[in-house]
Amino acid sequence: MITPEELEAARARAREYLDRAGIVLTAEEAANIEIADMGLGELEQTGLELVVYINTERCCAKELVLFPRQTCPEHRHPPIGDDPGKEETFRCRWGLVYLYVEGPPVAQPQARPPAGREATYTVWHEVVLHPGQQWTIPPNTLHWFQAGDAGAVVSEFSTRSRDEYDIFTDSAIRRATVVAA
Amino acid sequence: MITPEELEAARARAREYLDRAGIVLTAEEAANIEIADMGLGELEQTGLELVVYINTERCCAKELVLFPRQTCPEHRHPPIGDDPGKEETFRCRWGLVYLYVEGPPVAQPQARPPAGREATYTVWHEVVLHPGQQWTIPPNTLHWFQAGDAGAVVSEFSTRSRDEYDIFTDSAIRRATVVAA
Repeated sequence: MITPEELEAARARAREYLDRAGIVLTAEEAANIEIADMGLGELEQTGLELVVYINTERCCAKELVLFPRQTCPEHRHPPIGDDPGKEETFRCRWGLVYLYVEGPPVAQPQARPPAGREATYTVWHEVVLHPGQQWTIPPNTLHWFQAGDAGAVVSEFSTRSRDEYDIFTDSAIRRATVVAA
Repeated sequence: MITPEELEAARARAREYLDRAGIVLTAEEAANIEIADMGLGELEQTGLELVVYINTERCCAKELVLFPRQTCPEHRHPPIGDDPGKEETFRCRWGLVYLYVEGPPVAQPQARPPAGREATYTVWHEVVLHPGQQWTIPPNTLHWFQAGDAGAVVSEFSTRSRDEYDIFTDSAIRRATVVAA
């Protein structure tokens, strides 16, 4: 749960990062940036700021903003009916991203999970994305990512996005943001 | 057909526009920008410069560069087998784009087709895209677009791209670029 004031402060901050990345939004997009605190109420540590450009039955594109060292927690996109699950490509536009996916673990990870939640981070194959670099996540595979010390702006190109079906390793997470009345 | 010198000059010019739009490429992407002269050998009038970020069986993302008043000629993306045809969203990132799609024609179009090829432009519903504005093209529907006087950079988010199946209104067009030996 976040307060309306926290919501608007996070949106204003996300707009600054998008502006630094040279990304232009419409007024409506800028006013409605999605703030995902994952239900933990610790947005600085765990969360994501999103602008969804398009999301049809067939494809989806978003910009993601991560504040400095903010983490999008470990999850996967499961099959749903005939759909094998969401396939997504992350392309770093600004800043630096540490992405962790299934595969041989790195010996010395450059990211550290949010304090107290370490047990819910299980994949440790490290991919470092600088601006212009990208990585594609196959459907139904675990992944999580964290921005570097300056934050990050990441474009996401994917098949249809149905966030409500995402499966998070941390059972305390609730993907839908609740704003305090 | 274009010469190797024309190819490299067009790539260098496309890189300038992408740079103005704040878009960062890897060295490999920058060296391999696709130059599509549509087989007409009049790249300044008819053509497109492309960076394909990702193109899987399910989704695709590209950056498109248009030089000042350069036109991507009228075409559609037909159904192929079980695929209903490519669905694409154009989002203007920099410059200005005049997009023409099926629908009520505009009285005073702001773009003019390349000289001598007017008869191959048949849809005149006008959509003007400034930076941050976008439009989604349904599968198998005719569309064409032209940059404004300063050129344009456009992000394309779509389902799988199979350019070789595109159907152009102008039968003289060949989508695959031939570089002179």
